[in-house]
Amino acid sequence: MFLKVGTGIAYIKVNRKKGINHMKKILIATHGHLASGFLSSIQLLTGKVQEITVINAYVDECDFEQELNVFVNQVNEQDQIFVFTDLFGGSVNQKITKTFLEKEIAVTILSGFNLPILLEIVLATKELTKEDIQELVNKCQQELKMTILDEVHVVNEEEDFF
Amino acid sequence: MFLKVGTGIAYIKVNRKKGINHMKKILIATHGHLASGFLSSIQLLTGKVQEITVINAYVDECDFEQELNVFVNQVNEQDQIFVFTDLFGGSVNQKITKTFLEKEIAVTILSGFNLPILLEIVLATKELTKEDIQELVNKCQQELKMTILDEVHVVNEEEDFF
Repeated sequence: MFLKVGTGIAYIKVNRKKGINHMKKILIATHGHLASGFLSSIQLLTGKVQEITVINAYVDECDFEQELNVFVNQVNEQDQIFVFTDLFGGSVNQKITKTFLEKEIAVTILSGFNLPILLEIVLATKELTKEDIQELVNKCQQELKMTILDEVHVVNEEEDFF
Repeated sequence: MFLKVGTGIAYIKVNRKKGINHMKKILIATHGHLASGFLSSIQLLTGKVQEITVINAYVDECDFEQELNVFVNQVNEQDQIFVFTDLFGGSVNQKITKTFLEKEIAVTILSGFNLPILLEIVLATKELTKEDIQELVNKCQQELKMTILDEVHVVNEEEDFF
């Protein structure tokens, strides 16, 4: 296992086969029931849930390690795997990263994710390159935005309607 | 009602009273059970749920309009109100924006949000200015990031371990 530190990219000993139709597999893993919440939203908006696994870590009915192993053991070499974790550097994110490195399985981990990036990945119909994914990440970062419905005195400073 | 289009900021006729201890009130409103999912995660990580209301729009047990009205009717002039919506321009976001404009209630709407920005707002202990919130938004946009655990041939291109 080779880990290149500081770039956000670690290289591991897995060669995905070229020229094979890669199947997309998605895991959403979060603290609490957030993962199921995202699945509910995706189902409502897209109807697509077949390719998505969820892990609600640290809730009573979830054995995080066991559920992670079930997911990891059913992926194939030719799959393109995306894992969504709620907090970069959080315990769920750390466990996921460690497990995929140990098992030497190629994966794209998207942390601190929002619904727009999850929708983009779920709805993507072609295999995504690193550049494609980075572009989507950049775009969806901008989807986190604020709108302020503010006080009248601010209006008065800029435009006097009276 | 005054709506300034194109800046992301709309100005409405509400004056929050100065010099009063503003109470923070948070509404999470999403398509499906995502809102409850976020609440579950927040509860697990912080224990704070008292100030948070959730609306899981378009699920059987939720009357979106009624639940929104209940929230809107219990806020006070001195409250600092944050609404989190899953998709900017989505139907939940539109309904929220329209309702607050009609009721002339000052509010900060955070769309396309992720767990980091929700945590920042929940854990904030002082009243946040527009500049504070924009700074948090900018920071939390960067929390959406990708980590790629990639193939060995990429390592070999960069560093030859053999």
